[in-house]
Amino acid sequence: MNDTISLLQSHRSIRKFKDKPLGKSMVEQIISAGQAASSSSNMQAFSVVAITDTERKGILSELAGNQAYIRECPVFLVWCADLHRLKSAAERHRPGQESYEDVTENFIIATVDTALAAQNAAVAAESLGLGIVYIGGIRNRIAEVAELLQLPDLVYPVFGMCLGYPDQEPGLRPRLPVPAVLHWDEYDADKTEEQVEFYDKTTSEYLRERTGGQKDTPWSELMAEKLTQPSRLHMREFLRSRGFELK
Amino acid sequence: MNDTISLLQSHRSIRKFKDKPLGKSMVEQIISAGQAASSSSNMQAFSVVAITDTERKGILSELAGNQAYIRECPVFLVWCADLHRLKSAAERHRPGQESYEDVTENFIIATVDTALAAQNAAVAAESLGLGIVYIGGIRNRIAEVAELLQLPDLVYPVFGMCLGYPDQEPGLRPRLPVPAVLHWDEYDADKTEEQVEFYDKTTSEYLRERTGGQKDTPWSELMAEKLTQPSRLHMREFLRSRGFELK
Repeated sequence: MNDTISLLQSHRSIRKFKDKPLGKSMVEQIISAGQAASSSSNMQAFSVVAITDTERKGILSELAGNQAYIRECPVFLVWCADLHRLKSAAERHRPGQESYEDVTENFIIATVDTALAAQNAAVAAESLGLGIVYIGGIRNRIAEVAELLQLPDLVYPVFGMCLGYPDQEPGLRPRLPVPAVLHWDEYDADKTEEQVEFYDKTTSEYLRERTGGQKDTPWSELMAEKLTQPSRLHMREFLRSRGFELK
Repeated sequence: MNDTISLLQSHRSIRKFKDKPLGKSMVEQIISAGQAASSSSNMQAFSVVAITDTERKGILSELAGNQAYIRECPVFLVWCADLHRLKSAAERHRPGQESYEDVTENFIIATVDTALAAQNAAVAAESLGLGIVYIGGIRNRIAEVAELLQLPDLVYPVFGMCLGYPDQEPGLRPRLPVPAVLHWDEYDADKTEEQVEFYDKTTSEYLRERTGGQKDTPWSELMAEKLTQPSRLHMREFLRSRGFELK
């Protein structure tokens, strides 16, 4: 295992940060590394809003379900899928011509571009000794987040990311076994059950150890809870209100 | 700049590969590094189909717009957003209970999970001296790809990825300047125009040099072309047919 793979394999989400600021140039270096990721047809359909202001982080923390680490981290990044920049470009060269920023395909492109850049940035941050955690919670009250950050139409916050010096050392969380996610030549649905059963044992044991015997819910049961919860049902309407028709 | 950031910054897409096979264990190592990326609530909502069979790669190459490198690379990975595994888990624990795999929120989660894992895998592959290129073209005839790979409902191919030993050394493609994508405290739409103009000059010059003066279309014009093309308008209907209602 080389150093880079060893870095990737040692990732854990950090939710407690030292009270130590991050220089702007370090943030810029991290974003620049993010930009180096692949981008569909070089569309680079994403933007990042970096928040350092304590009050603003406090509001975002509240909007995201009172996660204290959003307020406590020195820099909170909001990763946005951005078709606004492309739409401006299109209007400049082809004013009045029909364009397709509102179709599902371009929504996928922008969302994927954002995620690839964010993950590169996460790796860069960790290589610098920083810790990160992705925050899906900013989609809880996404309209208010978009308002607060003054996002124009065709820009939506995909997720947040806390950035800072780690003040904790959590254990590694076990993942599904490789054969559960990797198929050869075609998808083999038959093996799913067996793989999930195996992973359920692993995760139960992990939870039991981590909680001193208090919890041992297997992964598949947690997933069942998750999937039977009506999660963020406002997303479709919010996206539509921002110009993503998903046609 | 540390070694990892230097690796990230030296990324370029590779479209010509040596005729040298890749061991299965190397592919597994790369996928395992992908799995180490963050995942929303540990849902791990993705799967990968790895294709080594020459005939099958040939068919995929054709389906993706006759990109020769899909046939020529030793391993072609199809990265799929996968809610099928979670739905199976839910049905096991909560049979008959309403679940929400068909809402937009879970579509975003699965798409982002897939992209984060893929980007980690891309970084791992490059750290091992391999080259990669993302293939959005597999969405051209996505229904046929899904059929070929025997994907069950609630699994969709987000993108492909060629993997192999590079047999070319393309130059680095310049990206938007950092201030074009990075905003502080709130989104500053006013700066977009100026930043894009600056980048247009950079990209024109880059193209002119790269093509010996044959081409110099600025980025914003390429983007205008892109956005006014009716791109993959079948995506919405395809997703619906596979259980992603995007409600």
